[in-house]
Amino acid sequence: MKFCTSCGSTVGLQVPEGDDRQRFVCTVCAEIHYINPRVIVGCLPVHEGRILLCKRAIEPRRGYWTLPAGFMENGETTLQGAARETWEEARARATDMELYRVFDVPHISQVYMFYRCGLAEGAYGVGPESTETELYREDEIPWDEIAFPVVRETLREYFADAASGHFPVRVSAIEPRQRL
Amino acid sequence: MKFCTSCGSTVGLQVPEGDDRQRFVCTVCAEIHYINPRVIVGCLPVHEGRILLCKRAIEPRRGYWTLPAGFMENGETTLQGAARETWEEARARATDMELYRVFDVPHISQVYMFYRCGLAEGAYGVGPESTETELYREDEIPWDEIAFPVVRETLREYFADAASGHFPVRVSAIEPRQRL
Repeated sequence: MKFCTSCGSTVGLQVPEGDDRQRFVCTVCAEIHYINPRVIVGCLPVHEGRILLCKRAIEPRRGYWTLPAGFMENGETTLQGAARETWEEARARATDMELYRVFDVPHISQVYMFYRCGLAEGAYGVGPESTETELYREDEIPWDEIAFPVVRETLREYFADAASGHFPVRVSAIEPRQRL
Repeated sequence: MKFCTSCGSTVGLQVPEGDDRQRFVCTVCAEIHYINPRVIVGCLPVHEGRILLCKRAIEPRRGYWTLPAGFMENGETTLQGAARETWEEARARATDMELYRVFDVPHISQVYMFYRCGLAEGAYGVGPESTETELYREDEIPWDEIAFPVVRETLREYFADAASGHFPVRVSAIEPRQRL
């Protein structure tokens, strides 16, 4: 951040009064600009024991498989955002959504929230950010071509939980060394 | 938002290519500026069946009681943020943290995440954003002086869950008409 969004003057890093960390503060109008973590919302769509994955049409990790997910938008709920991404990437309507997995990724200031869900009428297609979508059984998952660690971990846990029929909400952090 | 954070020129609202909603885009350097929801993290600290509440020293809702919570910072996890706020507002060390309650507040683009926790050594104090802190039994909670609907709802659910000994993670949205 170099310039103030309110007046266009330059900003500098300083610790505002009453605060304990550096913020970008405008050198002219003194506005304090807070920069906060972003939320990524997505779904783990399950239909007849198979999981819907999307092959990414865009970077990062173009050509790799992922769960439908993306940045939460202003004015929506986490559930609405996860359903929206599932429509945008896989042309599928999420049903019976239940929060399932939260990942903190502090080194890039992101929080992931995945909902387990069904697929309305078992239907899906291919949205503009995917080149291909497919329902996979556990033994068909392309484990070596999964786009992100949070997706691989969520898939692994899902199949373990499905075996027990119990789906607790889990929270954990992903560290840089775990990124591969 | 009036000015670009990268070059200081004016921004205008437009729908970028490949997008489907208006963003602030710089009229000179064409940078797209995304504005996303913010995460508020907090704790529901429990010690010997009593809940730690903080009387707010600052607006909004100065003088009303709340759970320790605040904006998540870049570079931390939701759990670390919730523990940090509990220290800052109540000088208490959260232990045994478990995600308990998620609230979406879409009309102000916020997501709340509360962790249930214990208090190290049952100790607490008063941080700079509080004028008073206190452990309350259910029948002592100042229900008419609770600062925010998300806090009232979390407290109500906690005491109901404590009666059954089962603490499921819940997610729901708070609508504007529920704000009182």
